[in-house]
Amino acid sequence: MKKYDKLVKNAAGRLVPEIINGEQHVAFQGVGKYKPEGRKHAPRIPSCIDYPDDGNKLVDNLKEALIKAGLKDGMTISTHHHFRNGDLIANQIFDIAHEMGIKGLRWFPSASFPCHEHLIPYLEDGTIHHIEGSMNGALGRFCSEGKMAGVGILRSHGGRYQAIQDGEVQIDIAVIAAPSADAFGNANGVDGPAACGLLGFALGDSQYADKVIVVTDNLVPFPCVPFQIHGNHVDYTVLVGKVGDPDKIVSGTTQITKSPDRLLIAELTAQFCVETGIVQNGFSYQAGAGGTALSIGIYFAEILKEKGWKARFIRAGSNQYPVKMLEDGLVDYILDGQTFDLEGVRSMRENAAHLATSPFTSYNYHSKGNFASMVDVVILGATEVDIHFNANVVTHSDGALLHGIGGWQNCLFSKCTILPIPLFRDRIPVIVDKVTTLCGPGELIDVIATERGIAINPLRTDLIEKLKGSDLPIKTIEELKAEAEAICGKPEKPEFTDEIVAAIKWVDGTIIDVVRKVKEAVE
Amino acid sequence: MKKYDKLVKNAAGRLVPEIINGEQHVAFQGVGKYKPEGRKHAPRIPSCIDYPDDGNKLVDNLKEALIKAGLKDGMTISTHHHFRNGDLIANQIFDIAHEMGIKGLRWFPSASFPCHEHLIPYLEDGTIHHIEGSMNGALGRFCSEGKMAGVGILRSHGGRYQAIQDGEVQIDIAVIAAPSADAFGNANGVDGPAACGLLGFALGDSQYADKVIVVTDNLVPFPCVPFQIHGNHVDYTVLVGKVGDPDKIVSGTTQITKSPDRLLIAELTAQFCVETGIVQNGFSYQAGAGGTALSIGIYFAEILKEKGWKARFIRAGSNQYPVKMLEDGLVDYILDGQTFDLEGVRSMRENAAHLATSPFTSYNYHSKGNFASMVDVVILGATEVDIHFNANVVTHSDGALLHGIGGWQNCLFSKCTILPIPLFRDRIPVIVDKVTTLCGPGELIDVIATERGIAINPLRTDLIEKLKGSDLPIKTIEELKAEAEAICGKPEKPEFTDEIVAAIKWVDGTIIDVVRKVKEAVE
Repeated sequence: MKKYDKLVKNAAGRLVPEIINGEQHVAFQGVGKYKPEGRKHAPRIPSCIDYPDDGNKLVDNLKEALIKAGLKDGMTISTHHHFRNGDLIANQIFDIAHEMGIKGLRWFPSASFPCHEHLIPYLEDGTIHHIEGSMNGALGRFCSEGKMAGVGILRSHGGRYQAIQDGEVQIDIAVIAAPSADAFGNANGVDGPAACGLLGFALGDSQYADKVIVVTDNLVPFPCVPFQIHGNHVDYTVLVGKVGDPDKIVSGTTQITKSPDRLLIAELTAQFCVETGIVQNGFSYQAGAGGTALSIGIYFAEILKEKGWKARFIRAGSNQYPVKMLEDGLVDYILDGQTFDLEGVRSMRENAAHLATSPFTSYNYHSKGNFASMVDVVILGATEVDIHFNANVVTHSDGALLHGIGGWQNCLFSKCTILPIPLFRDRIPVIVDKVTTLCGPGELIDVIATERGIAINPLRTDLIEKLKGSDLPIKTIEELKAEAEAICGKPEKPEFTDEIVAAIKWVDGTIIDVVRKVKEAVE
Repeated sequence: MKKYDKLVKNAAGRLVPEIINGEQHVAFQGVGKYKPEGRKHAPRIPSCIDYPDDGNKLVDNLKEALIKAGLKDGMTISTHHHFRNGDLIANQIFDIAHEMGIKGLRWFPSASFPCHEHLIPYLEDGTIHHIEGSMNGALGRFCSEGKMAGVGILRSHGGRYQAIQDGEVQIDIAVIAAPSADAFGNANGVDGPAACGLLGFALGDSQYADKVIVVTDNLVPFPCVPFQIHGNHVDYTVLVGKVGDPDKIVSGTTQITKSPDRLLIAELTAQFCVETGIVQNGFSYQAGAGGTALSIGIYFAEILKEKGWKARFIRAGSNQYPVKMLEDGLVDYILDGQTFDLEGVRSMRENAAHLATSPFTSYNYHSKGNFASMVDVVILGATEVDIHFNANVVTHSDGALLHGIGGWQNCLFSKCTILPIPLFRDRIPVIVDKVTTLCGPGELIDVIATERGIAINPLRTDLIEKLKGSDLPIKTIEELKAEAEAICGKPEKPEFTDEIVAAIKWVDGTIIDVVRKVKEAVE
């Protein structure tokens, strides 16, 4: 089997394959242009006849569960990433598969982390054929160097749900590591020694996978409440000694920036939101867990307090800062997709206004609307932006695939998308002529905020109009680019071979771009 | 089109049609014998392209929503019954359909109530072809008299979810009346002037219907929290002046019995549960809203308090009594399918241990298990029981179809099913040779508790063994029947014509029995 075939130029002018790993895909047709036909994936109809009346689905261990679930060559195995770098279960699954001599698995995680470097030998020996999911760190480099047997496919959180829902990826076995569960399979992330907040990234897996295994180290008598994962979707439950490493669940990026440049960017961004009237009583925002984004949130909190306003909701990635805003009465609700620290977990457990959401509610583009487009302003990062406001979030300046998409693409549908980014990183300008990897079309990116000025997308004449006469340093993106290049020089482009190592999906399941094998890896 | 065709004798010995209203059905094959093949219903894949970015799906009124949803002849329209006799919306739907000259609709309510007698003219003039759902009161009599154009189909709550999930009933338009909603369609039952607690009966409709309309009289800014119904499933939202009549939401049956006979039955039942060891620390039970069942719950509460025990959960139909037990610390959780009074609504709103469940979690037989089989003891009613412990819950002694199945069939899967029933009603014995309509197979009914004694199903040798030497009046069911007949005489059987007017589904979607046209209605 060829790794990919049938290259076509998509609507963004990028050459992408229509066949990947032997499966048919559709090339990107433009934002809001591709309309799905057909019907959602229809799982087999189960029957209570095949499940124990007393609800006890416990089997002895993960291996037994995988065997009962029919683990065999070529299957698709899914896991979630709520434990982030503290995940202990994904590696065990493939240890077992390797021990059993299983080959050619597709691993379909909602994201992978440095802890999953453990899996590289299994990618090398054919236990795992390829990964579909974000590949951070070592796995990304492995992929970038063309070492994976298949082509990686990267999707946003919403795109992953869409792919499951639409049957584009049919999961044979979903393994859901759960901080708390009952023997029936009801499970949640709020209780137990490895509490991670919620299990939303595993929702689609639980609904659509053929077989579902829940693994926990905190087995409680039925019912495990809240049942974020419904036991009615679960085939087997497994009790283990430790399901996740709580110390590594907490993201390392949830500290406010101390860099003066980043603080300036945060301040300019917040000021922009004030002057355009985006920050107002009842407004909503989403800011990631990066230091700059956190600082912007703190500015927002100060403005709300000063004006006596209250935000309606924060879309999160929660951590101590939004939690404090909720507890201080500065916001009505946190609509949370993943908790980034233990304060987030505590708040979700205790506070009915801190809600567990999922990629279905928040991000799925093949839905009757989703939450993302209702957010007033979203603050996102990028590794590169080009003069057409296109942005890259997956490859670094050296061309290596080192980040996942996360909810980034989905969030671009907010009413105002701002990328607060430094003008250069390690003396490499961030604004370029053409992004290496296209992840977000420029038409959806409204504002670039840098330490030397703010560029507004010319499509947003409304925002430009509102800031006439402002003291904010409004510049064109070309001006910002020229300033960076005047300081750092024009950056060299990373060199690639022709070989495609990964595909980047758009939120509608079409292929917006590819990642090619980096040149330095060529023998 | 013949109303029904292809009569076969099913595993219970009842003659049932395999074709009803032109659709293929399967005859009952025995408890746990029919194994579904095939896949769940796959709804069309929607796209955010077709929904407003700002999430505002409001249309002017219900008529406009129905027109936009494509209302036309022959469609299936679903509604839920959480407002019970206070429902205002179902009648309006068919007023609009009638006004538009639409014909041949299938109405698929989760239950109908006396307030829906309003629809009889539409059944007569062909606006509505037939009803699939419980028909209480006037609609039941209308059906029993053979006046409905199609054959009615009655399903349990779990069977209704199963039928939707399996694509047996494909809903064209689901109309979900909601006490509280936002313009996106997130909705719940806990807030607003017509608060009814939850909207679980509409869950399957929201997930699988082609078009979904949410109607509310309490529109809140996004997000409407908790989102018991996900706006992501909703096509249109409608704001009306009044969505339900709160006074009539409360069920009239939530008063403890004052009848000495009924109190005796309740006491014997509770005593039975104590002596068999069913009532113990950590046990679970489900009791309906009838006066006898409520009294049994009060006995249970007294025993728990006396022993210092705590029940793990109560499956409800909640009302003031389970709520008080929860607040008094006599039970960990209420797993609630419908609230029967305003105390139930309040508790569900305020108390995280009072959980909204759905026919999916609790009752769906085509699932990987459900809650019903994990309940230690369930207390149910019946209109008739026969000497093989088969029971009837839909037709009265005169043969008329006057009740729905509700969750009754689903609850039979509990670890112990007790029917506390009077030996006779209006001098008509309740224990008969053969039930008029078979709703529940005797093998699932463990105990009949009457004011003159308790009969244990001979299959439950374990229970019989446990009560050896008990002072409880244990008798055979034949003895109980003989006692009743000695007092009242042998009852006359109701007379029927051959014509089938309704089919009774078993929990797996097979046909367990039919209801025939009553003789007195023959001209």
